[in-house]
Amino acid sequence: MFDGPFAPELDPAERRARLRLARSKRIGPITFHEALQHFGSARTACANLSVVGDAEIAREEEKLARADGRFLVLGDAEYPAALASLPDAPPVLSLIGDVALLGRRALAIVGAREASLAGRRFAAQLAAALGGARFVVISGLARGIDAAAHEAALPSGTVAVLAGGIDQVYPPQNAALQQAIAARGLLLAEAPFGTPPVARAFPRRNRIVSGLAAGVVVIEAAARSGSLITAQRAAEQGREVFVVPGSPMDPRHAGSNGLIRDGAILVRDANDIISVFGLPQSVPQAVEKPAEKMDDTGTAKVLRWLGAVPTAVDELVRRCQVSAATVAEVLLALELEGRLERHRGNRVSLM
Amino acid sequence: MFDGPFAPELDPAERRARLRLARSKRIGPITFHEALQHFGSARTACANLSVVGDAEIAREEEKLARADGRFLVLGDAEYPAALASLPDAPPVLSLIGDVALLGRRALAIVGAREASLAGRRFAAQLAAALGGARFVVISGLARGIDAAAHEAALPSGTVAVLAGGIDQVYPPQNAALQQAIAARGLLLAEAPFGTPPVARAFPRRNRIVSGLAAGVVVIEAAARSGSLITAQRAAEQGREVFVVPGSPMDPRHAGSNGLIRDGAILVRDANDIISVFGLPQSVPQAVEKPAEKMDDTGTAKVLRWLGAVPTAVDELVRRCQVSAATVAEVLLALELEGRLERHRGNRVSLM
Repeated sequence: MFDGPFAPELDPAERRARLRLARSKRIGPITFHEALQHFGSARTACANLSVVGDAEIAREEEKLARADGRFLVLGDAEYPAALASLPDAPPVLSLIGDVALLGRRALAIVGAREASLAGRRFAAQLAAALGGARFVVISGLARGIDAAAHEAALPSGTVAVLAGGIDQVYPPQNAALQQAIAARGLLLAEAPFGTPPVARAFPRRNRIVSGLAAGVVVIEAAARSGSLITAQRAAEQGREVFVVPGSPMDPRHAGSNGLIRDGAILVRDANDIISVFGLPQSVPQAVEKPAEKMDDTGTAKVLRWLGAVPTAVDELVRRCQVSAATVAEVLLALELEGRLERHRGNRVSLM
Repeated sequence: MFDGPFAPELDPAERRARLRLARSKRIGPITFHEALQHFGSARTACANLSVVGDAEIAREEEKLARADGRFLVLGDAEYPAALASLPDAPPVLSLIGDVALLGRRALAIVGAREASLAGRRFAAQLAAALGGARFVVISGLARGIDAAAHEAALPSGTVAVLAGGIDQVYPPQNAALQQAIAARGLLLAEAPFGTPPVARAFPRRNRIVSGLAAGVVVIEAAARSGSLITAQRAAEQGREVFVVPGSPMDPRHAGSNGLIRDGAILVRDANDIISVFGLPQSVPQAVEKPAEKMDDTGTAKVLRWLGAVPTAVDELVRRCQVSAATVAEVLLALELEGRLERHRGNRVSLM
């Protein structure tokens, strides 16, 4: 986890060492952060571990450059703080496109690949409206909802997070869209250049989609669907979970309706989302969320991990890296303020 | 308000006085309760106020008896305690049918007159499942959702509350259903025998529908609809409010989705209701959709693009990339299987 303060400019040697560490076999994001913690810097880690050589980084950087891309390293000034705050923040991302989009407030839109036409249309309307409210729209470039959201948000700003390397065109149906996002939006990839998108890469990609966003909007999530898992991860990341309801007779909404029952925010239109972030709305609405004072206390840490979807207290303790007693105290205070709801299985959620 | 303890048998003279008081001009339920409070009994109230004579009550009772009906007076042993607890509990009801239904646990199902076929079918499934769990189903005998719920609950027990007098056949489309409920269920009416159902009687009727029930299930409530008002009144009466969600793109769900945002319980199937009352979930997940064999036929292609929200047939043809004739054929087959609903503007949706 990046919990700064990094210097505005990451030292070039340290930056290079981070690239080498991140690109080494068997060093995933968690191990990367542990190594950084343990050795104090990537430079020291590289001096002590068997990591890839500088030449391999140079080769990848060259291929990237030929594709008009470049690296974004954890610690770079442009690396988004929201993403950096994740315990499994990607140490290195490849990017092609407008990196300035990462500096703007963002919302993710995710949903079914086999979405209905109505669902796609709703995703497009929502993406356009959120773009109009100056939100960047993040998604995963999948077919269906993802593609509809990206496409509608092209004029206002959209970021696609790929499951494979940044050069991999996938899915083939979205090749033109992928090219358009490279030209007018931003492509991001955690996997090294040339890596094909394998199955296990998709959930890893999803944590970045939600990690970049203040909230995730779910449209047409069936039971046990990928979007449902993304929503649950997003809640664990402390992101707002917004869900578009649908008929219980259509299994495409089984997951979505379940999320709403579990406390996710029901979405009828963009204002139901925008109002949560305290922005002026085109239509008056009643939903408000108290502004959190995010200081460095236990409360702030708990609030960062706690959302509308029930989370196990055990998990909170683990994530917050504060004592169980502190978490219990914070939860009690929130409960007394009427802001906490307790659920079966020692789970809690914000109200 | 009836806040007893009344004797198990209401004194016949007091009962008659209550009928006279209740049937007098300008004495609504609230005034009735105030008079009872003020004078200590209806007998004393009748001795001090200008009320209708005994002959008028006898005439109504006679007409009622000829229609196989009788009075139910607040204070009668059979008068349901839940209804009696309302501040505006009806002093007198007329009934035809099986009064024992008032002794069983009950849920109301209300919704749009102009309901979609899918909504009606869901109402029927829900009513049958709730009946299976020994709930009596209460509704208002309106077209659409009300009628579908009553009809499905006829074998297990249903109570219809009429807006006019108990002899008034309204709406005409439900004449046969009204007769069936009189024979196998229970009809209730607050208005005197012979009173036509006027507009202002409907909200008054609705308070009885929810007042008889432990909870109200709302299906397809548009913004500013009667069902929405019923739900709000039900919440004020302390009844649980259950709401079936729907697509925000269909205005028939605008009120429903707003209720869920405001804290009503989202309903996916009967178990979501039954579980609130702590009953065993005898009902297997009520709503099921036949598994689609997603092969490469026209049916599979059409199903992939079709959902619960109406979609233009033209757009289906374009998206499916099969001939208009094939799409028409597939839609017809779905319609014959009872799985397709047609809408204005050559639009269709799955049910």
